[in-house]
Amino acid sequence: MNRHDEQAAGRGRAMGKQDNDLESLIYTDNAPEGSVSITTISYDGSRIDEQTQVLPESLPDLTLRPAVTWIDVDGVHDSDLLRMIGDALGIHPLTLEDIENTRQRPKIEDHGDYLYVAIRMFFPGSDGRFRSEQVSLVLGSRYVITFQERPGDLFDRIREHLRAGTGRFRIAGEDYLFYALLDTIIDGYFTVIEVFWERIEGIEEEVIAEPDQETLQAIYALKRSLISFRRVVWPLRDVVVELERGESSLIGDATLVYFRDAYDHTIEVVEAVETYREMVSGTLDIYLSSQSSHMNEIMKVLTVIATIFIPITFIAEIYSMVFAYMPGVAHPWGYPAALTSMVAVAVVMLIYFRKKGWI
Amino acid sequence: MNRHDEQAAGRGRAMGKQDNDLESLIYTDNAPEGSVSITTISYDGSRIDEQTQVLPESLPDLTLRPAVTWIDVDGVHDSDLLRMIGDALGIHPLTLEDIENTRQRPKIEDHGDYLYVAIRMFFPGSDGRFRSEQVSLVLGSRYVITFQERPGDLFDRIREHLRAGTGRFRIAGEDYLFYALLDTIIDGYFTVIEVFWERIEGIEEEVIAEPDQETLQAIYALKRSLISFRRVVWPLRDVVVELERGESSLIGDATLVYFRDAYDHTIEVVEAVETYREMVSGTLDIYLSSQSSHMNEIMKVLTVIATIFIPITFIAEIYSMVFAYMPGVAHPWGYPAALTSMVAVAVVMLIYFRKKGWI
Amino acid sequence: MNRHDEQAAGRGRAMGKQDNDLESLIYTDNAPEGSVSITTISYDGSRIDEQTQVLPESLPDLTLRPAVTWIDVDGVHDSDLLRMIGDALGIHPLTLEDIENTRQRPKIEDHGDYLYVAIRMFFPGSDGRFRSEQVSLVLGSRYVITFQERPGDLFDRIREHLRAGTGRFRIAGEDYLFYALLDTIIDGYFTVIEVFWERIEGIEEEVIAEPDQETLQAIYALKRSLISFRRVVWPLRDVVVELERGESSLIGDATLVYFRDAYDHTIEVVEAVETYREMVSGTLDIYLSSQSSHMNEIMKVLTVIATIFIPITFIAEIYSMVFAYMPGVAHPWGYPAALTSMVAVAVVMLIYFRKKGWI
Amino acid sequence: MNRHDEQAAGRGRAMGKQDNDLESLIYTDNAPEGSVSITTISYDGSRIDEQTQVLPESLPDLTLRPAVTWIDVDGVHDSDLLRMIGDALGIHPLTLEDIENTRQRPKIEDHGDYLYVAIRMFFPGSDGRFRSEQVSLVLGSRYVITFQERPGDLFDRIREHLRAGTGRFRIAGEDYLFYALLDTIIDGYFTVIEVFWERIEGIEEEVIAEPDQETLQAIYALKRSLISFRRVVWPLRDVVVELERGESSLIGDATLVYFRDAYDHTIEVVEAVETYREMVSGTLDIYLSSQSSHMNEIMKVLTVIATIFIPITFIAEIYSMVFAYMPGVAHPWGYPAALTSMVAVAVVMLIYFRKKGWI
Amino acid sequence: MNRHDEQAAGRGRAMGKQDNDLESLIYTDNAPEGSVSITTISYDGSRIDEQTQVLPESLPDLTLRPAVTWIDVDGVHDSDLLRMIGDALGIHPLTLEDIENTRQRPKIEDHGDYLYVAIRMFFPGSDGRFRSEQVSLVLGSRYVITFQERPGDLFDRIREHLRAGTGRFRIAGEDYLFYALLDTIIDGYFTVIEVFWERIEGIEEEVIAEPDQETLQAIYALKRSLISFRRVVWPLRDVVVELERGESSLIGDATLVYFRDAYDHTIEVVEAVETYREMVSGTLDIYLSSQSSHMNEIMKVLTVIATIFIPITFIAEIYSMVFAYMPGVAHPWGYPAALTSMVAVAVVMLIYFRKKGWI
Repeated sequence: MNRHDEQAAGRGRAMGKQDNDLESLIYTDNAPEGSVSITTISYDGSRIDEQTQVLPESLPDLTLRPAVTWIDVDGVHDSDLLRMIGDALGIHPLTLEDIENTRQRPKIEDHGDYLYVAIRMFFPGSDGRFRSEQVSLVLGSRYVITFQERPGDLFDRIREHLRAGTGRFRIAGEDYLFYALLDTIIDGYFTVIEVFWERIEGIEEEVIAEPDQETLQAIYALKRSLISFRRVVWPLRDVVVELERGESSLIGDATLVYFRDAYDHTIEVVEAVETYREMVSGTLDIYLSSQSSHMNEIMKVLTVIATIFIPITFIAEIYSMVFAYMPGVAHPWGYPAALTSMVAVAVVMLIYFRKKGWI
Repeated sequence: MNRHDEQAAGRGRAMGKQDNDLESLIYTDNAPEGSVSITTISYDGSRIDEQTQVLPESLPDLTLRPAVTWIDVDGVHDSDLLRMIGDALGIHPLTLEDIENTRQRPKIEDHGDYLYVAIRMFFPGSDGRFRSEQVSLVLGSRYVITFQERPGDLFDRIREHLRAGTGRFRIAGEDYLFYALLDTIIDGYFTVIEVFWERIEGIEEEVIAEPDQETLQAIYALKRSLISFRRVVWPLRDVVVELERGESSLIGDATLVYFRDAYDHTIEVVEAVETYREMVSGTLDIYLSSQSSHMNEIMKVLTVIATIFIPITFIAEIYSMVFAYMPGVAHPWGYPAALTSMVAVAVVMLIYFRKKGWI
Repeated sequence: MNRHDEQAAGRGRAMGKQDNDLESLIYTDNAPEGSVSITTISYDGSRIDEQTQVLPESLPDLTLRPAVTWIDVDGVHDSDLLRMIGDALGIHPLTLEDIENTRQRPKIEDHGDYLYVAIRMFFPGSDGRFRSEQVSLVLGSRYVITFQERPGDLFDRIREHLRAGTGRFRIAGEDYLFYALLDTIIDGYFTVIEVFWERIEGIEEEVIAEPDQETLQAIYALKRSLISFRRVVWPLRDVVVELERGESSLIGDATLVYFRDAYDHTIEVVEAVETYREMVSGTLDIYLSSQSSHMNEIMKVLTVIATIFIPITFIAEIYSMVFAYMPGVAHPWGYPAALTSMVAVAVVMLIYFRKKGWI
Repeated sequence: MNRHDEQAAGRGRAMGKQDNDLESLIYTDNAPEGSVSITTISYDGSRIDEQTQVLPESLPDLTLRPAVTWIDVDGVHDSDLLRMIGDALGIHPLTLEDIENTRQRPKIEDHGDYLYVAIRMFFPGSDGRFRSEQVSLVLGSRYVITFQERPGDLFDRIREHLRAGTGRFRIAGEDYLFYALLDTIIDGYFTVIEVFWERIEGIEEEVIAEPDQETLQAIYALKRSLISFRRVVWPLRDVVVELERGESSLIGDATLVYFRDAYDHTIEVVEAVETYREMVSGTLDIYLSSQSSHMNEIMKVLTVIATIFIPITFIAEIYSMVFAYMPGVAHPWGYPAALTSMVAVAVVMLIYFRKKGWI
Repeated sequence: MNRHDEQAAGRGRAMGKQDNDLESLIYTDNAPEGSVSITTISYDGSRIDEQTQVLPESLPDLTLRPAVTWIDVDGVHDSDLLRMIGDALGIHPLTLEDIENTRQRPKIEDHGDYLYVAIRMFFPGSDGRFRSEQVSLVLGSRYVITFQERPGDLFDRIREHLRAGTGRFRIAGEDYLFYALLDTIIDGYFTVIEVFWERIEGIEEEVIAEPDQETLQAIYALKRSLISFRRVVWPLRDVVVELERGESSLIGDATLVYFRDAYDHTIEVVEAVETYREMVSGTLDIYLSSQSSHMNEIMKVLTVIATIFIPITFIAEIYSMVFAYMPGVAHPWGYPAALTSMVAVAVVMLIYFRKKGWI
């Protein structure tokens, strides 16, 4: 085990750094918070029983009771607690390592008597950005366990439904609860998608109105955020496909149709990300072209001013020469004639530029 | 159900915004219109019976009668009505949700006793743009139901054929009606394709004749419209492939060959979209290159003017100096000689530029 | 049927416009020509019988005779005639529609008792461009029918072989005739490929020698022609693959090996098109870079001239000032000294530019 | 055999050159070091026996003893020794050639009674770069052989575990040892990934702060390193997939789950490389755009200075003319009036540029 | 046959032109050389018999003798000879056509009693370029035939091994000879790869040191050579994969493992080509960026010179005016004061540019 721990730590470091690139829109708070707490909700059609333990010493025996039990663990940095839960429920040590290592790519593992799913949950933070954390879901016979990195999640509505006894929850089994948790997290992606969309619209306006070097950096940051977000979403497709196929006996046929629904949502998110990536590339094209356009405009101004004044300055220069014999210099009409010729040259130039469409 | 409704709403919002990008060519009118109406057409080889109900309370019993019944529902925002229809015909609640959520990507679901297809219909609006709405088709035993977002569709010709008893409709079953409805919608895509084509041709001409920043924005808008249109067309392929495979017992072998035809049309649309995307990229290349070309032209004018006048101005400047002893200044031929040398320099320069091909 | 006719017409219009983009190299003459004619060639090992009918009223009975019959129909716009042929030979109405609609993408349909193949034939026109038309081939038991849009084709050599009794034709069956017709059309593609190649070579030379805006348009036109040509060639691969697989009982094992040969040719054409597309992209890169290079050259000339003359003009300007006390102005060596300093500055500048490699 | 040797040498030369492109981040030391040494570790649950031989003459008989034996060979350039090992263990001559040729792409070969895996190991050198060498692993019944190019590897931790009897090693079989060696090498890739990440971050900062031609070369070097690294990582996926499938009887079911873990790590590395490639492309875009931006800035300065001074210089030039009759020249207010008009023109220009946003 | 001959000729012409693009690195000598010669080597474990015939009239009977026979034909333009060989060994006419048409893409055909492989052989010419010719290999029972376009090949080493009785040749069957010939040709590709590598390195140096328009053309030529080379290598993969699969009874299991080796080499070549293509694209990016960089440098020089001298020339111009009353003109310190102000302006400008980092 030790060897694995060490390796996982090394990997965690490598991956942890990589998350900086989500900084612009999504961030991951790496520091584990103090104490670990476990909330257990047991329910069946008629009763519901909810209790919260901080730093629990033992786990209630789950296998005997007829009710469905949802164990929600906040904090996964306590290896001893994880091992205790694993021993109680027969979870493989490698799965426990995956739960502890919060840098997994989304994946599903069917261990026969339980299903393990690692998924990333996004929820809006106070500053308009998104906090990301890994949620590990374990679906076993009559129980669902969720492991979160820290308190706070998207599951409040499910809790309310459970307490109020509304929806299908109380009559359906643990597979429906498992589905509902997963689908809630996937639905949370649409909020991220919506913010991406707003950013792209903002950049589109900016890139057309007044693009500068910062616009470019914003485009690049958005592109990076999309790349990172895609890395989370892309493998999720395989996870949901495997669930939808219904090969696990833990998921009943009645619930299977809901996973097909979840699959549709996942595909929608994936396609939105791909579309956005194309759009961001498009804004980059506009940016580059607008720079080129801007340069053209500058060049036009310079060229118009220079090519009007250079010839007429030359005329003036001619009559600045100090030759003793210069025809017309002594003539009273010499000066007006020179000025007139300058005006004429300037007018010809202006007409030429007007014809070119430069002014 | 409640949980699903809330989620769907959230998703609808996110996706609703996304449709702005179709603004240039295709738009979606999101506001649901007032009342819901149902038109029922029952027919067999000898008789046809048509009736329209606004805000119906109940549905005629379909399963008993031998005739084929087409129920056309305008408006899907009335959940109660949908539930009533669903209960009468045994449609799964998730399918009803899909019908109500008008932001589905095209999909097909085979529920054994009925087939559900979601597809997007485009029809030309008054301003040369296209209105888009989701059409849900349900094919069951002896009936077809179509759910549209609002009144107005492409199906008038089918109605006329039914009433007149022309075509295969009256002798064929409900699967042929189902095919005809689907194929009519797919054929409607060719109208969109045609308008795309006109736009591309317009942009091609513009980009060669007189490209400006607006041309670029038009290219970008077209690119975005194509991306959005592709998102609708691409998954349609999978829908029609599944229908063509003939795995559902609801579609008879005689009708299957028509779906192969519909598949060909779908592929044609998909390929046209891909081709157009390549062409739009091509116009962007031309635009960027023409900007660069334009800059070259400006630079040439500036360079020719500047390099002709700078040396001869220098000559004039020489003789503007106020040195007491300057040879030739006092000579009567000094002035003409200076002028001649200037002309000579200018002519040499002009010959040089002519040789370079700049003038 | 009517409904289909109308739709096909609408589609024809949309697709017809699209063919403009082949204008540069390939064109399609849309107007159907006057009357339809049918040429029937019946042959076996010992006899050959050939007859041509204009506007035929009836078709000879094909199924009874032991000989192989090739029916070549010029003109597909006469629906009644098509229907008459279809009725005589048991061809499905949808196939007849496909034959009449001359905008099909290449496809194959196995109807059990006959094989239908739609393919596009190119043959050189009088102006170095290629005329394109759709050829529909129907292979049935003891007969092959070819439907062409208008008179004139690539099949003269096959006719000669048939009449002279050379080659395998007279001893082989109708499947070998079918193969020979198909392979002749595919071989015709190599002529198009050859012309593409000449165009690319021409553009390559032009882009290196003296590229201008027209070169760019030629590149773009070539790119579009390649895109269009690829749309015709790409699906052909699937057609020939299906023939080569030998799933139809209409094609004997002895002939199958020839279709493998035809497949190789198709792949060669497809790969040539892909290679050419890459090459055309390459020429675009050269074009853009040569524009940039040209700009550099212009800038160099301007910079050299300006930076040489601006400083020495400044020196002249100094001594044009009218200050009462300017040292050296009254000195006899003042003027030569000023000129010398100007020459010195110019020489220093020239050396600098020479070192930079600009002149 | 001789023919193969010669060919392999030729290939080695070709491939050896290719490794120069890893120079910036990763290098391969081609010169084989002096003598070959073999370290043999035999262990079971209770005992461990370790011995090192330099230039061994014979190999201990492995097949008889019940313990697991790990033979670690440093140096693969001694063909005789390889042949001796091969003969003792029944390894195919082609496998021996693969071991000797240190330019293999990662691959797996299942020879029935042994599994051969070629993989590339990276470990940090003294100068912040990575040394790369090929490791060949052979898994047979009760033994694992590792062939390394030279002394020094990443396996010290495994040796410590073996000696201390910690971890699963002593109780698990030779398949677990095989897994642990492979996984250690794959984990070593994360260190390379981490350094790539640091380089990308460095380049991102540089490209935004002060990009120059060297930045571009650094981007290109990084791109090349990524291409080379990908060539090593990409085929590894297939290797691990085949191991994970569990088709070889040499790998027990208990160990199979660990290979699934190794597969996840491999995918992570592959995805990181792809992501980095996209990021490096992004920095190139920024670099090019920043060059263009820089040019814009230069042009603005030139244009502002030139267009302000050219007109007012012209005014001064007017009054430098030497006409006898110039109104205002003799007037006491002429000079201040001329100066004022110059200031006015300059101010108008400045206001214009301010409005344009250029200053 | 005639028809095929004519078509093949037409195709040959089209493809022949295409080979010009290999001109820079690889060329194909199209003119067939004079007479055809056949070298026959028969061998078994104990004896070897070698004889060469020019323009042979008949072929020794191969099927009866127990020895392995290798027939090496130089020259494939003699149709009669090919037909004679084909008749003697039962080779299908289509295969003979493929042998004669030297523009085949690499392919394999399993005719049951013989295997046909077409492959392109490259060997170094006298001028550092590579001569390319098509080699057709036919593997039958107890014989291998190789058809080459003209004398000279890479097989000398195999001949030496056969004569000397070294290697596996004399003890192995004809399948091993077939493998050895194929592998020798594939190994020849590594020499081409090596030269590609040298060219890329040369271009990389050039593009960083002193890129000009010729560098661009060299990049483009290299790109084209790679595209052409890839067209030869890419389909080879499928050829070797089919051989490796071992579906033909002509290849024994003992030899199969060698084809796996050949497959590895093919993949290596394919990947090298792909990598090189990416690198060449990278050099193009550097080239374009270096052009842009160069332009920036030119602009900087112009801007620095112009913006320093334009203002101070203006000052000089001020005092060149001929107003009667100009303060300071008559003052002895006027001239030094004017010069000082000019120096001051120039110094301020220089400091500004230094701060900008332009000088």
